[in-house]
Amino acid sequence: MDYRSSGVDIDAGHDVVQRIRALARETRTPGVLSDLGSFGGLFAIDPSGRDDTVLVASADGVGTKLKVAFLARRHDTVGEDLVNHCVNDILVQGATPLFFLDYLATGRLAPEVAVAVVEGIARGCRANGCALLGGETAEMPGFYADGEYDLAGFIVGRVARSAVIDGRAIAPGDVFVGLSSSGLHTNGYSLARKIAFETLGCSVDTFVDELGTTVGEALLAPHRSYLPALRPLLERRSSAPGGGPLLKGLAHVTGGGITDNLPRILPPGVGARIDTRAWQVPPIFKWLGAGGHVPHDDMYRTFNMGIGMIAACTAADVPVLLGALEADGARVIGEAEAGEPGVGYVR
Amino acid sequence: MDYRSSGVDIDAGHDVVQRIRALARETRTPGVLSDLGSFGGLFAIDPSGRDDTVLVASADGVGTKLKVAFLARRHDTVGEDLVNHCVNDILVQGATPLFFLDYLATGRLAPEVAVAVVEGIARGCRANGCALLGGETAEMPGFYADGEYDLAGFIVGRVARSAVIDGRAIAPGDVFVGLSSSGLHTNGYSLARKIAFETLGCSVDTFVDELGTTVGEALLAPHRSYLPALRPLLERRSSAPGGGPLLKGLAHVTGGGITDNLPRILPPGVGARIDTRAWQVPPIFKWLGAGGHVPHDDMYRTFNMGIGMIAACTAADVPVLLGALEADGARVIGEAEAGEPGVGYVR
Repeated sequence: MDYRSSGVDIDAGHDVVQRIRALARETRTPGVLSDLGSFGGLFAIDPSGRDDTVLVASADGVGTKLKVAFLARRHDTVGEDLVNHCVNDILVQGATPLFFLDYLATGRLAPEVAVAVVEGIARGCRANGCALLGGETAEMPGFYADGEYDLAGFIVGRVARSAVIDGRAIAPGDVFVGLSSSGLHTNGYSLARKIAFETLGCSVDTFVDELGTTVGEALLAPHRSYLPALRPLLERRSSAPGGGPLLKGLAHVTGGGITDNLPRILPPGVGARIDTRAWQVPPIFKWLGAGGHVPHDDMYRTFNMGIGMIAACTAADVPVLLGALEADGARVIGEAEAGEPGVGYVR
Repeated sequence: MDYRSSGVDIDAGHDVVQRIRALARETRTPGVLSDLGSFGGLFAIDPSGRDDTVLVASADGVGTKLKVAFLARRHDTVGEDLVNHCVNDILVQGATPLFFLDYLATGRLAPEVAVAVVEGIARGCRANGCALLGGETAEMPGFYADGEYDLAGFIVGRVARSAVIDGRAIAPGDVFVGLSSSGLHTNGYSLARKIAFETLGCSVDTFVDELGTTVGEALLAPHRSYLPALRPLLERRSSAPGGGPLLKGLAHVTGGGITDNLPRILPPGVGARIDTRAWQVPPIFKWLGAGGHVPHDDMYRTFNMGIGMIAACTAADVPVLLGALEADGARVIGEAEAGEPGVGYVR
């Protein structure tokens, strides 16, 4: 079983993204600093550069993790997933959050559910020091099945222009440090649900020994925010001769896994070699992979496999990074090498 | 037939909004200038006020107007609806747009449809001088019916702190000037579809003499942006003794109609009297009202009835406003009076 057979066609998605990117380019104004496809969009408040504030914005959804929340009748965690996902998407460009807005769409509004969802959002916002500035609660009869809803979020953060992290300086020999994920985060749920609830015939309440918990609990583990871990490092300089920022690049491992997300920050002529023996793949991924007979490549292009964030630094800075991030499950997982931007795995 | 019987419960929605507002308040940070419930959320880049840039952000959906687009197999206009809706929502606080992000969620991605939707978004962005900075295209198997999708948008604009328009200074005797809408805009579609496609048994292709076009064309008329009309007036001062801004308040007539939206900008102790004889209600609203036997009050709490934007000014400034907005169908539609914030209609 792979992701395409679960109903998600990553390649078709990529083609659409290319065409959308071309459309977006036609709307560029002087403030736009980024191309679509970076994790967050970059916008200079003052294109002349006198004020060096850059706004970083991102839009995200929770995806079909929502279906697990519906099955478990647990609606107060998906909001936290969404906020943390958004926070991470702008964090990888060096930004800290300013404010967040949500879009909650339902067929018929169930007040308790809507409030539970926003409770999760508000908790996530508070934990990240981000204001919940607004949102839209849309009641759309005939659009969503009874008891179901969709949830999207929008975040805006800021970074000084000189502190934008973009991976541009990553060079062969640089090191990739991986930070632990807290579970599936918000990606791969179409495949995960198919394996768990169809192939393996579990319910959300099925207790699985190797997971040490129920399927529902394991699949609903909230997406982790890497802001507390990485914020102290955002403005740190490298100890290497010549300086530069300590963090040369950050990749948020979301839909497409390490395979599709790490190359998003690699400059031309630089590839990545990732040693999958460098970390213990958490039980949830092993359980899903075995249960669905999912090929290795599909696993790494669908799930985060236990690594939710990757930081790139100069080899000389590895001890600094590992020291600062010791409590966050940081470890060296690979290095940059000359070649096409892409990921080669050592198994 | 009223809005509640069409599946949308505006009052339940209001209760949820109150509870959500309380949750949002707990996330406030020093930059937040607005309470949830204003059209756009206000955020000061520099809470100390040395830099007076205020960001204004809003999230919106297209609502069940999408269902009409599905029926008509026309996907390149709803994006423009969405952008213009968002632009108007921040314009009412004096802001001009900086950038926009979209969230497009489908069951299975149909590339041509996704691209058509974004074409509409990009066209709307270009027309408003707004950059399409990013977005999320989510493929969620099992979430949306075949060929269907949901679409939400998120906009950020800017306004100088001293130029924020908030209605605070509206006083009895002030005048409300209404600007023409281009159709239903993006509200009231659950009721409109029920009347058009169920009660009256029309299809999107039914030609209706009194509309001069097909049902599909009439219902898909794009939501108008009021930015071109109002931008030149945003920084104008009143000619009245004591000065102040020319535009004392702006209300975007969206879900809830004039009845619910005009009070959003009225200060305590000020109500509105609106003379519905002051303008010609466009044929589409008459056709829907008659077809669904919709009570007058429900019509004005559901549809914009031909007035998509309301500007409040001092009586002395009316000639200036009408002169500047002549081409935009501006006319005096009522005035502010002492009393509870609410709308009384003269028929």
